[in-house]
Amino acid sequence: MAKELKELTSRSVDYSQWYQDLVMKADLAENSAVRGCMVIKPYGYAIWEKIQRQLDDMFKETGHVNAYFPLFIPKSFLSKEAEHVEGFAKECAVVTHHRLMSDPNGKGLVVDPQAKLEEELIVRPTSETIIWSTYKNWIQSYRDLPLLINQWANVVRWEMRTRLFLRTTEFLWQEGHTAHATEEEAVAEARQMIDVYATFAEKYMAMPVVKGLKSPSERFAGALDTYTIEALMQDGKALQSGTSHFLGQNFAKAFDVTFVSKENKAEYVWATSWGVSTRLMGALIMAHSDDNGLVLPPALAPFQVVIVPIYKSEEQLKAIDEKVASIVAGLKTLGVSVKYDNSDNKKPGWKFAEYELKGVPIRLAMGARDLENNTVEVARRDTLTKETKSCDGIEAYIKQLMEEIQANIFQKAMDFRTQSTRNVNSYDEFKVEIEKGGFLMCHWDGTAETEELIKNETKATIRCIPLAGDKTPGKCMVTGKPSECRVIFARAY
Amino acid sequence: MAKELKELTSRSVDYSQWYQDLVMKADLAENSAVRGCMVIKPYGYAIWEKIQRQLDDMFKETGHVNAYFPLFIPKSFLSKEAEHVEGFAKECAVVTHHRLMSDPNGKGLVVDPQAKLEEELIVRPTSETIIWSTYKNWIQSYRDLPLLINQWANVVRWEMRTRLFLRTTEFLWQEGHTAHATEEEAVAEARQMIDVYATFAEKYMAMPVVKGLKSPSERFAGALDTYTIEALMQDGKALQSGTSHFLGQNFAKAFDVTFVSKENKAEYVWATSWGVSTRLMGALIMAHSDDNGLVLPPALAPFQVVIVPIYKSEEQLKAIDEKVASIVAGLKTLGVSVKYDNSDNKKPGWKFAEYELKGVPIRLAMGARDLENNTVEVARRDTLTKETKSCDGIEAYIKQLMEEIQANIFQKAMDFRTQSTRNVNSYDEFKVEIEKGGFLMCHWDGTAETEELIKNETKATIRCIPLAGDKTPGKCMVTGKPSECRVIFARAY
Repeated sequence: MAKELKELTSRSVDYSQWYQDLVMKADLAENSAVRGCMVIKPYGYAIWEKIQRQLDDMFKETGHVNAYFPLFIPKSFLSKEAEHVEGFAKECAVVTHHRLMSDPNGKGLVVDPQAKLEEELIVRPTSETIIWSTYKNWIQSYRDLPLLINQWANVVRWEMRTRLFLRTTEFLWQEGHTAHATEEEAVAEARQMIDVYATFAEKYMAMPVVKGLKSPSERFAGALDTYTIEALMQDGKALQSGTSHFLGQNFAKAFDVTFVSKENKAEYVWATSWGVSTRLMGALIMAHSDDNGLVLPPALAPFQVVIVPIYKSEEQLKAIDEKVASIVAGLKTLGVSVKYDNSDNKKPGWKFAEYELKGVPIRLAMGARDLENNTVEVARRDTLTKETKSCDGIEAYIKQLMEEIQANIFQKAMDFRTQSTRNVNSYDEFKVEIEKGGFLMCHWDGTAETEELIKNETKATIRCIPLAGDKTPGKCMVTGKPSECRVIFARAY
Repeated sequence: MAKELKELTSRSVDYSQWYQDLVMKADLAENSAVRGCMVIKPYGYAIWEKIQRQLDDMFKETGHVNAYFPLFIPKSFLSKEAEHVEGFAKECAVVTHHRLMSDPNGKGLVVDPQAKLEEELIVRPTSETIIWSTYKNWIQSYRDLPLLINQWANVVRWEMRTRLFLRTTEFLWQEGHTAHATEEEAVAEARQMIDVYATFAEKYMAMPVVKGLKSPSERFAGALDTYTIEALMQDGKALQSGTSHFLGQNFAKAFDVTFVSKENKAEYVWATSWGVSTRLMGALIMAHSDDNGLVLPPALAPFQVVIVPIYKSEEQLKAIDEKVASIVAGLKTLGVSVKYDNSDNKKPGWKFAEYELKGVPIRLAMGARDLENNTVEVARRDTLTKETKSCDGIEAYIKQLMEEIQANIFQKAMDFRTQSTRNVNSYDEFKVEIEKGGFLMCHWDGTAETEELIKNETKATIRCIPLAGDKTPGKCMVTGKPSECRVIFARAY
C-alpha cells in the first residue's frame, strides 16, 4: 500500500506529470502558498547543498571570492543599460511601501499610504546594475583588477507559468560578476566559467552538455556574447543549464566605471557575469530518473548508500546492527556517506520503495541468512540489479561500485544524446524530425528573421552554436543562404 | 602614507566612529545605494562563511536539516498570530505590483497600475508564518515529529536608523523552526539551541556570553519564552547575539497544525524558533578589535597566518620563496590556512599595516638575515608582540600558538566582562553606575512597569534573567518589592 502511495505516473504516459509526481513524492520541493514560489524540502535542499558546495569549491579554485549585495535594486538603476532594462524590468516584484497599518475600518492590515517610497525598489531579478554601481567605487586603477566576485542569492522574476525548479518566481542561484582591464581577459573569463559549468555538469551531475554560443536573439539582455551549456532531457527537450556572459563595456559605461591603465589612461572596465540556479535540480532529475523514482549520481546524493536490516526478532536485529556497524565505519573511512535505517515502524519493503524513489545509488540489505553466510545483498539504483556479495572487502567494493555507477549514469545519458542528435538538411525534414525531439544539427543563415520563423512554426529554438565539432559551411535549410556551420535546434524547457 | 589612509579613529575618542572606520577600512562591509542595505565585501563575507559553516555543522550534529521557504509572505498570514503581527507587520517591505512599464510621458520606468497584486506580499522579516502554513501539510501523526528544520536566508526589516552589521534593513541569518509532540521536547529544543549558540560564541568567536531568559516585554513577538545569549562589547554596552524561542502552541493554533498522538488524539503541535544573523559580525568586531584594527580569533579568520618576505633583490626573494614554500606546505598539512604575500607592488610596511588592520592572527616575516640564521619573525596580532624563532619545528609552534591566541582573546574578553559586571543595590547607585557601562546585576520586581521606568530614565534594559548563577532573592532596587533573583541590566545595541 505504501508502495502505491509512492507510485509515479510513468514517463511514457505523461512526462510532465511524471516530473511533477517525482518532485513531490521524492520530497524534493512543493508549491507554496505564494504563487509561483516553491518550498525546497529538506531532501531536495540536501542535493542543492551538494551542488553548491562543489561549485563553490570550483569557483574558489579559479580565484573567485564570495560577497553579498542588496536584495533590492532602485528602479532607476534598471534603466541605465538600454538592453538590460528591456529584458529584466518588466515582470518583477515591485516594493512601493515600507509599512503596514491596522485598517481604520477594522479589516486587518492595510498598506500605510503615508509610507510610500520615494523611488520604488525592485527585488533583484539579477544583480548587474546594483553590483556595477558598487564597483564604481572599488575600481580606480589597473591594480584593482581583475575583480573576481561571486554571490549566492535568491532572485525573483515574475513568471506567468511556473514549474517546480524549472521556472519559479523566486529561485536560488549564484551569480558571478567580474571586472577586467582588457577585452581578452574578460572573454577568457567568460569561457573559463562555461568550462567550469560544463565540467561540473558532466563530472558531478553525470549529465553531458554541449558548450556553445547563443544566437544574438537569445543572448542575455546587455551581453555581447552569451555562452551556454545545453543538456538533453529524456523527453527529447533541451534544457539550458548554465550561462556565462561577456558583457563588453556596457555596464561600465552605464555606471561610469573607469580605471587608470598601466599606460596612465582612463579606460572603461570589461565585464562578465555567469550563473547557474536551482534549475539544475530540474535538469538532474530529468536527465537520469525513471518510472520508479529519482536516480542520483553518487557524487551528488545526500547519502550514497542505505543499509536496511531484515529481521524477525530483536536478537536478529541486534546481531545485524553489530555486523552493519563495522561496514558503516569502514564506508565512512573511505569517504562514503551512508545511512543505516533500522527504524522499527516501517517494513523493509516500504524502505526499499522509499529509497528507490529517493534515488539512493546503492542499497544494502542484510537478513538472517546473510548473517550466517557473511554476505550482504547489494542493489544498484541505476540498473535495478541485485547481487549477493561477501562482507569481506565490501567497503572497497562499494567504493569502486560508486564510481562505476557514476560513469554508467553519464554514459547512459550520453548514449541517449548521441542517438537523439542528428543532422537535418531540409526544412520539411526538420518539421517531421522536431516532433521526435532531440538535438537537430542544421544550417541556418544567421538572421533573426529565419530563427523567428522557425520558432513560430515549430516551437524549436537555436539552443547554441557549438564551440566544438563540425564547422563545415553549408546552406540555410530555410532560405538557402550561406551558413557558417551547423547549429543545434531543439524544443526547450 | 598608506598607513595613514588606513588609520582608525581611536576607541577612546569616538567608539562609534572607530567601529564604522574599522568595518569600512578592513573591507568588511559598506553602505549600498539602497537605504539601510549593506554590501558585505569579500573579506567580511569570508568571515561570515566561516561562521556559517561552523554553525551549520553544529546544527546538523544536533539532528537538524536545511530547507528553503519563500521570500514573500502573504499579508494575511502576518495577521494570524496576534502578538506576532504587532511585532513584525509594521515596518516592512511591501510588494504591491508585479510589473514596470515605460512611462507614456517618456520619463523612464513606472509601475504598471494594471499589475497590482490582489493581496500584497511582505518580504519576510522572519518566517514563522509561511513555515507554519507549510508544516500544516507536513504533519499528520506523531510519527512526523519532531520536525527539525533550519533555513539560511535573507530577511528585511525596515529600520529607521541603521549601522553596518548591527542593524540593517536587509540582513543574512539562519532561522530554525522546529515542531514537537510535547511541551517538554520543545522547551528542551529551545534550550539546546541556546546552548549551541553559547558554545559557538565562546569556542569559535572567543566571546563570553551570558545565557538567560528575556523578560516578558523583551520576548520575541509570539513566544512564551525567549532564551538569549548576551555579550558585552568593549564600550560597556551589551549586544544580544542570538535568541531561541519556545513558541508554545501559538503558531500551531494560528495555522491549525494538529497531529494524531500515540494515544490517537488530535493535539496542537509545539514549536520553537531560533536564529543568529550577520549581527554576529558586529559582535565579533567589537568584542576584540583595537585601535590598530580587527583582531580575529584564529577559529574564524579567513586566513590564520600571513607570511611576508623582506628582500632587496630578486635572488633574495627567490631564496625566501623556496624557504617559505616548505613552511606553507607544513602549515597546510596541520590544517592551518596561510597566505604568502610576495606581491611586488606593495612594501613590507604596507603589508604589515594591512594585515594588522585585517586582524590576521599570526604574521611571519622573513628577511635575508633570517634566511642565514634559519629563523623567522613571528608577530601575534592579539598582543602585538614579536619574537624570532627557528624555522625548525615552526609549523607545530604556530599550530600551538593559534590555540594560545584563541584562548587569550577569550580570556581577555572574559576578564573585561568580569571587571564590568557588578552588583548594584539601589536605584541611585544604578543611575551612576549605568553611565560607566557594563553588566549591572540588580533586583527587579518582575513588572513591566518598573522595567519601562528604568528604561525611560536610564536607557538601560534587562538583558536577561541568567539561567545560571546567584539565585538569592532580594528586593527590587526601584520599588522594594520582592525579587526572585538578580537580573542583568545594561545599555544595549
